[in-house]
Amino acid sequence: MSQKSETPQKPDSSEPDIITVAAAPVKERRDTRDNDEIDAELITPEQIEDFALKDDYALNPQYISLVIDAADRGDGLRLRELLDALHYADIADLLGFLSQDYREEVIPWIPSDALADILPELDDDIREEVIESMHTADIAEVLQELDSDDAAAVFEDLEEDQQKAVLAAMPESEREAIVTSLAYEEETAGRLMQREVMAAPAFWTVGHTIDHMRENGDDLPELFFDIYVIDPSHKPVGAVPVSVLMRTKRDLPLSQLMEPITEITVDQDQEEVAYVFEKYHLISAPVVDESGRLVGQITVDDIVNIIQAENREDILALGGVSDIEGRDTGIMGMVKSRLPWLLINLATAFASVTVINAFQGEIVKMVVLASLMPVVASIGGNFGTQALTVSVRALSARELTAANATRTLWREVVSGWLVGACVAAGLAAVTFIFWHDLKLAGVIAGAILINFTMAALAGTLIPMGASKLGIDPAGASPIFVTLVTDFCGFFSFLGLAAIILL
Amino acid sequence: MSQKSETPQKPDSSEPDIITVAAAPVKERRDTRDNDEIDAELITPEQIEDFALKDDYALNPQYISLVIDAADRGDGLRLRELLDALHYADIADLLGFLSQDYREEVIPWIPSDALADILPELDDDIREEVIESMHTADIAEVLQELDSDDAAAVFEDLEEDQQKAVLAAMPESEREAIVTSLAYEEETAGRLMQREVMAAPAFWTVGHTIDHMRENGDDLPELFFDIYVIDPSHKPVGAVPVSVLMRTKRDLPLSQLMEPITEITVDQDQEEVAYVFEKYHLISAPVVDESGRLVGQITVDDIVNIIQAENREDILALGGVSDIEGRDTGIMGMVKSRLPWLLINLATAFASVTVINAFQGEIVKMVVLASLMPVVASIGGNFGTQALTVSVRALSARELTAANATRTLWREVVSGWLVGACVAAGLAAVTFIFWHDLKLAGVIAGAILINFTMAALAGTLIPMGASKLGIDPAGASPIFVTLVTDFCGFFSFLGLAAIILL
Repeated sequence: MSQKSETPQKPDSSEPDIITVAAAPVKERRDTRDNDEIDAELITPEQIEDFALKDDYALNPQYISLVIDAADRGDGLRLRELLDALHYADIADLLGFLSQDYREEVIPWIPSDALADILPELDDDIREEVIESMHTADIAEVLQELDSDDAAAVFEDLEEDQQKAVLAAMPESEREAIVTSLAYEEETAGRLMQREVMAAPAFWTVGHTIDHMRENGDDLPELFFDIYVIDPSHKPVGAVPVSVLMRTKRDLPLSQLMEPITEITVDQDQEEVAYVFEKYHLISAPVVDESGRLVGQITVDDIVNIIQAENREDILALGGVSDIEGRDTGIMGMVKSRLPWLLINLATAFASVTVINAFQGEIVKMVVLASLMPVVASIGGNFGTQALTVSVRALSARELTAANATRTLWREVVSGWLVGACVAAGLAAVTFIFWHDLKLAGVIAGAILINFTMAALAGTLIPMGASKLGIDPAGASPIFVTLVTDFCGFFSFLGLAAIILL
Repeated sequence: MSQKSETPQKPDSSEPDIITVAAAPVKERRDTRDNDEIDAELITPEQIEDFALKDDYALNPQYISLVIDAADRGDGLRLRELLDALHYADIADLLGFLSQDYREEVIPWIPSDALADILPELDDDIREEVIESMHTADIAEVLQELDSDDAAAVFEDLEEDQQKAVLAAMPESEREAIVTSLAYEEETAGRLMQREVMAAPAFWTVGHTIDHMRENGDDLPELFFDIYVIDPSHKPVGAVPVSVLMRTKRDLPLSQLMEPITEITVDQDQEEVAYVFEKYHLISAPVVDESGRLVGQITVDDIVNIIQAENREDILALGGVSDIEGRDTGIMGMVKSRLPWLLINLATAFASVTVINAFQGEIVKMVVLASLMPVVASIGGNFGTQALTVSVRALSARELTAANATRTLWREVVSGWLVGACVAAGLAAVTFIFWHDLKLAGVIAGAILINFTMAALAGTLIPMGASKLGIDPAGASPIFVTLVTDFCGFFSFLGLAAIILL
């Protein structure tokens, strides 16, 4: 197991009998976690670690209750005891589960050695709360413990005057690292990378490289997976995985071991970087500046976070939630992230109102039209959403490009006809059974076929067009697809009815 | 850069002047890719690599045209030339962009040394096509080149008689590896893990461990990031990252270096494994059997694929697409993955029809009700979808559990009232402006508030309930949420209208 930061419970393994302790908790945990009968109040400090996590590694709600009880009692010692047993990632998770009042109670009791690791894990709002509770000197100290990418991420959330105070309290080199990192644009490789990297010239031998690393251990990144081979102008020309270095004869030069590299440039978008990592199964990649010189590296553990963040954005955007909402978003934040989309929908909904209004005479003559028309609109809308979802996902995975756009569109339209024919047949049958009107059944079937065709076109062309224009297809498309299927649904059904039935 | 398999263009770096070739293509590529003016037909073999990828690392549609042209001409040599220049991941991507006819033309020309690496990258349908074109002996050979996890994944897709023939053609040890791997259930850690792992007893020194690795290089996993420290009963008790091993004095025992581990058990669900990797930022983790003995390891590059697959499932399920649809899914596959959901929706849509039918008298008296009622249902449905999307995402990220369920529900309801009040006010204003009917405006505002309350409850409680019952919340919930908001939308609006207006 590799972790970027030290875990709090590092065993003192100089005594051999303690070695097994490192493995034991996991087994014990799985045993006790199955047992819900434990009286939570009686949990001893030794049992907390096993009790805190459930079987699926989510925090145990009973453990969270213990924390809340201790906070209610103002029992700081118990809080410290409860927090001490947790991995830093779980402490960050815990803060997300607490309401703001309880967070304020709990934050002062977070072990100070865990604080540095916790900060990068927190959502923005909570991180701000934690930092507000810290002295400038402590913030400066915490930033120095972090890798440059994490330090910059925490730093950029500080208030401007706080930033100045923190910078003043930091040593020259660390200060420069943060300022350099922030000079790159947000969401670029430059921000994402860590500057600490292990590099060596191609003529170095395996033995010399290992000896060098052993002598300069303190200056190396805490964890690294590749040694980048650089030319005299500091440009990366290859990489040697440490596991390869380790099993190779000492007298071989790196030039004979190195593998080709996939370079990342500092200004590349983080989403593009994630795509490259995923496509080529990279573990780490060198980052170069405009002139091609090695300035840092990006490792796959950072990429996992990016991938999750991008997916979260896609899912929420498709659901019509414009800002990123987490469990700590306040009510006003929720309103802000949802209202705009609904108001736009309200505007587009009046397109349907206008269509229906135009057919008021027909509806009064044959009121069953009013009952059936929402079915045509909503089923068409559902098919449009299906086509849209598939297209948005394919676009974001770069599986839909100019190379297969025409074929994809054609496939969607044909499947729209087939699916539409099935739905139309079913709907026509039900309509005939209930209203004994063959023409009405025909009208609704025809309207479904028209609307499914439009839905297939809209669900494919709208996200493709958005992507072509550089707009996020997940965010903008659902409104327009629904507009098309609502409008066409009501218009085709009521229009066909006016022509054929009345 | 680390890759699990060898890249095809490994430079012969024994000649120093070739070293720069490893880095050069990336730079050249970025230059030429900006230039769309190139006459594609005149591309020489040396230029293909730069031409094949666009700036965002997606395959260049013009390159794909070159492949299609060569296939049309039956020009095998050109196909081989075009394919030779690609990374194996890009060849897999290319096959996804081609229609089945062209794939059949192209597959025979895939360089045989790239075939092993390509197979695990392919979607199931395409992999089947490729395997059908191969001889049993070749399949057996390819499987032996793969890590055990990839080999098992490819193997399980073979026809039963093919499986037998392939097993018979493999050496004993490899055969056993595949059979063992397939004995674990699908989507578990046992399937995901690779059996190759580097383990050492705690008393070994750094020097001894490195010497051992150097002597037994061939038996080690191709790439690894941690050395697992095991006790005499083969249970893992800690891990030493290779980068730590490398920079430590030779005489230190592993017991003094090792860090605590997060064990994975063979029967854990892959989604749970992905959550653990993400939460604790793991690079690799040891996998143990029921008795706690080390049997393999899982590395983060496999986890990246799992995370993407799970997210893809969530996004498609939320959009009402039940099977996984990719760019190579046939029309019938698309129909199969979309029709079931639409037919269920058709059934639920008749709940709305029934409600509207019950109010036919009111609609005939006041036909404007027919125009406005879809707005109440659809805006309510949109708010329900927003609440649902946020809940489903929070559930899958384990950010919504029993610990904050009540608070989350309450937040949703309150935000429903606030957002609903804004929408109701806007809608009432528009209604009054167009129809000059204060009561009608009041009715639509009241109906919106009722429907938003129901939407908030449904959008939160339905996915929570599904998750509690062990059903995937993304798949089952949208139908029921829409059912609630449609039914309540029509009922509350027409009902209030019947009481107040008529």
